Amino acid sequence: MADELILLDVHVSMFGMRVRVALAEKGIEYEYREENLANKSPLLLEMNPVHKKIPVLIHNGKPISESLIIVQYIDEVWKDKFPLLPSDPYQRAQARFWADFVDKKIFDAGRRIWTRKGEEQEAAKKEFIDALKLLEGELGEKAYFGGDKFGFVDVALITFYSWFDTYETCGNFSVEEHCPKLVAWAKRCMEKESVSKSLADPKMVYEAVLMLKKKFGIE
Amino acid sequence: MADELILLDVHVSMFGMRVRVALAEKGIEYEYREENLANKSPLLLEMNPVHKKIPVLIHNGKPISESLIIVQYIDEVWKDKFPLLPSDPYQRAQARFWADFVDKKIFDAGRRIWTRKGEEQEAAKKEFIDALKLLEGELGEKAYFGGDKFGFVDVALITFYSWFDTYETCGNFSVEEHCPKLVAWAKRCMEKESVSKSLADPKMVYEAVLMLKKKFGIE
Repeated sequence: MADELILLDVHVSMFGMRVRVALAEKGIEYEYREENLANKSPLLLEMNPVHKKIPVLIHNGKPISESLIIVQYIDEVWKDKFPLLPSDPYQRAQARFWADFVDKKIFDAGRRIWTRKGEEQEAAKKEFIDALKLLEGELGEKAYFGGDKFGFVDVALITFYSWFDTYETCGNFSVEEHCPKLVAWAKRCMEKESVSKSLADPKMVYEAVLMLKKKFGIE
Repeated sequence: MADELILLDVHVSMFGMRVRVALAEKGIEYEYREENLANKSPLLLEMNPVHKKIPVLIHNGKPISESLIIVQYIDEVWKDKFPLLPSDPYQRAQARFWADFVDKKIFDAGRRIWTRKGEEQEAAKKEFIDALKLLEGELGEKAYFGGDKFGFVDVALITFYSWFDTYETCGNFSVEEHCPKLVAWAKRCMEKESVSKSLADPKMVYEAVLMLKKKFGIE
């Protein structure tokens, strides 16, 4: 039996994009279903009753939630094609550490850049840039976080690149000015079709954010 | 060469206890070093420069941080002894999902029970109990979250049992009243020496919390 794969997702979600990048990297076909978060589908509520969040990957009827957990699942099920996590346990732990760091530091600081103003926004920008600098340090002179190969941390971080324009416009700063090597890494990742075809257009992200700001009454 | 293992930890930490339980479950010997979080050791700052948090496991000079990542590392390195994660990728994803759920919901709601008052404390209690009920539902009629065997989610959650007395005293409620099956599960886990010898005495947790409340000026 062929695998049946359905992805419940939102086009501009950096978490959903991770799953799309991982599936594309492995060359796995799937059915994409766009969710409307203002009116979630009964299927989403049934498949992720705990968090009620996208992305959810449904594999032969069984749901997997939380983007990094989904990416690890994909890597474990289709393990022979372009492995994302290293085989060495220590390197695996390091990859998990940095992917977790992206979740804990980049997402939250980034969100506060476009939801806050004044001092709170400045603090968020500083946190965001400081976190990116730590990641740039971890990247070092490597082509990818995975070394010579695009890997788990690359998947975890690259999807935020779609959001850089929005952060920069809302926060009036330049990521490249602070982290030129990280931006060079992002452009290198974008040369991969698995990445470029999976990431949302930055203009669509910005439009989505403008709509959210209007909805939540953020000037 | 024998493995050199050093654990930088704090006795009452539910995150540190996870690593102690995993090491005990696998029968691995290690050197324990208690940290003073008010005056962190140069070794801790060197080994976890990003988060500067315990626990850190140093394996032959190389540090691993973040408790669930450490537990997975231990499980992967000593994989032949009492595996904690299931071998099936879908079951692994589910175990990671619930362990992540514990991190996202139980810790934060629990902390707010002893740091807040009034409505905020009531909201935290409700969140805490609701999250435990979801976990109790996931446990179902199984002996452990891992099924017949103590596993990854059991390690992730059982260390909070040391804190139940403190949450109950500070919040004036009974976990057992709301979640009798979960408390029965915790008592079952405590029959295992790997758990009972690794968990902090609830009285020590409560004393530590009283000291923290005094330090932070919480009545």
